[in-house]
Amino acid sequence: MLLYVNSRLEEGSKKRLRDQVPADIQIAFRQDLAEGEQAEVFAQADFLMGNAPADWLKSPNKLQWWQLDSAGFDAYKDIELSIPVTNMGDFFAWPCAETIVGGVLAFYRTLDELAVLQTQSKWVGAALRPSMFLLRKKSVIILGSGAIGQVIKQILTGFECSIRFLARTNPDAELHTVEELKEALPDTDIVFNTLPGSAKGFFSAELIKAMKPGSVFANVGRGTTVDEAALIENLQSGHLGGAVLDVTEKEPLPADSPLWTMPNVILTQHTGGGIATEELGKIDLFLENLRRFQEKEPLQNEVKLERGY
Amino acid sequence: MLLYVNSRLEEGSKKRLRDQVPADIQIAFRQDLAEGEQAEVFAQADFLMGNAPADWLKSPNKLQWWQLDSAGFDAYKDIELSIPVTNMGDFFAWPCAETIVGGVLAFYRTLDELAVLQTQSKWVGAALRPSMFLLRKKSVIILGSGAIGQVIKQILTGFECSIRFLARTNPDAELHTVEELKEALPDTDIVFNTLPGSAKGFFSAELIKAMKPGSVFANVGRGTTVDEAALIENLQSGHLGGAVLDVTEKEPLPADSPLWTMPNVILTQHTGGGIATEELGKIDLFLENLRRFQEKEPLQNEVKLERGY
Repeated sequence: MLLYVNSRLEEGSKKRLRDQVPADIQIAFRQDLAEGEQAEVFAQADFLMGNAPADWLKSPNKLQWWQLDSAGFDAYKDIELSIPVTNMGDFFAWPCAETIVGGVLAFYRTLDELAVLQTQSKWVGAALRPSMFLLRKKSVIILGSGAIGQVIKQILTGFECSIRFLARTNPDAELHTVEELKEALPDTDIVFNTLPGSAKGFFSAELIKAMKPGSVFANVGRGTTVDEAALIENLQSGHLGGAVLDVTEKEPLPADSPLWTMPNVILTQHTGGGIATEELGKIDLFLENLRRFQEKEPLQNEVKLERGY
Repeated sequence: MLLYVNSRLEEGSKKRLRDQVPADIQIAFRQDLAEGEQAEVFAQADFLMGNAPADWLKSPNKLQWWQLDSAGFDAYKDIELSIPVTNMGDFFAWPCAETIVGGVLAFYRTLDELAVLQTQSKWVGAALRPSMFLLRKKSVIILGSGAIGQVIKQILTGFECSIRFLARTNPDAELHTVEELKEALPDTDIVFNTLPGSAKGFFSAELIKAMKPGSVFANVGRGTTVDEAALIENLQSGHLGGAVLDVTEKEPLPADSPLWTMPNVILTQHTGGGIATEELGKIDLFLENLRRFQEKEPLQNEVKLERGY
């Protein structure tokens, strides 16, 4: 049996995987293969760990089960596979929620500006205070009611925020349609977007225009779900107070994007899901699912690719 | 009757005060007086708003009531006054708590590093992820159980942190003595210091040494309550993971302090209490207490100077 590891791993993580995988399973690490032989070795694999190129998955292969190393899988939604596919579930929910709430807090408390001043050994102090605001008691809409949105809600409860979810099919959400959302936006201080790539273009120019003057847009879903040009326009005009963006339409963000230099924008460079124990978490979930697969138990976090999320 | 306003105010705030103070009260704004006549005008005032020089308070004056524009009043603790003195109470608690928790979140999620990268239009992205951690479920000790500490606790509850207070006389606190604190530190991920200036030198080299390896020290109290040299030493040696400092021993922080350039330190330059509506809040409290004073009702936030806090 052959396990193909597409995920790039530190040496310690590779050792951990080697030590814990049953002896009858060989491991091929993509990072250790010459580029020319990678696809060929992949085609012989029984198991896949990580997000291999979509083309490889479309070509004939022997896969019996595939463990993604992400929560999202937009890149694979037109692939037809009859094998079980599992994702990282809510593994990234806490790191994503902490980064995006931390970014909004940084915006209100000017922590980004203070970080830059620190590199200049420049004490400004009291002069910054009139440009500082509170997260406390802000009215919030969270787009999407998945794991990330639920953690954001839990954190914001400590800040005494009022929170509404927008989710088309979740009966617990307060808002279900674009019309209901549009009506709620003028009373909302912060919109947190957690929508997956399948909601392409959802947060339209019309919705951005409907946001409350001075309000904040925070995105930890996918950049493609937002009309970025309209977002930039409404930030530049001063209609919006600010934006905290973990994701952008194109990543890496092109060097000539105006977002880089806008003083009311905080960019966190798609690090939202990051956590020092990320590789460990991926390996542990893989090993648990491998055990379940071999013992014919239900797998954790099984997903349907065509759902898009 | 004369009101002496020591607080520096925007024109809009001055107008608000003028419009709302009873007609029989004249107002002298220190910022509009020549430096040579300020003390002389002060000596004729019936009411004082703001933190005038301690020397003036020690000289003969006609004050009937004094409204401080801060929560702390360390600078006045050796002054004997028989008039009522009121402070800002818990007005700064939320902004202070949001800045210091935001700073800790910035530390764990590398938001300070990302802010600096943004000024360079430099996308690093995934490479930052192995240096990111979570605030979730951290074990926390809060030094001081006043208003700021209570808000910090409320916010951290959303992050599922376990929280203990150190307070000498508060029966609700989990820790009451230096010995109990020293024993608890090796199991603690973050120490939040909210102690006032009267606790000078409290967080000693011995306590810093007792902290858990890799743990974080966050200070939103007073810089003088900590052995700063020992703090710097333990940050440089790597014993501590990091520090978030809203306050330092000397403020402004001297340009040659090593704290400016230490990569595991976040400095927020005593902006913790800052809020755009700060002047409005000060004026509103002053007006409310003026009404109470004139109608002989109990004042809000009356304090005893010799308590130090």
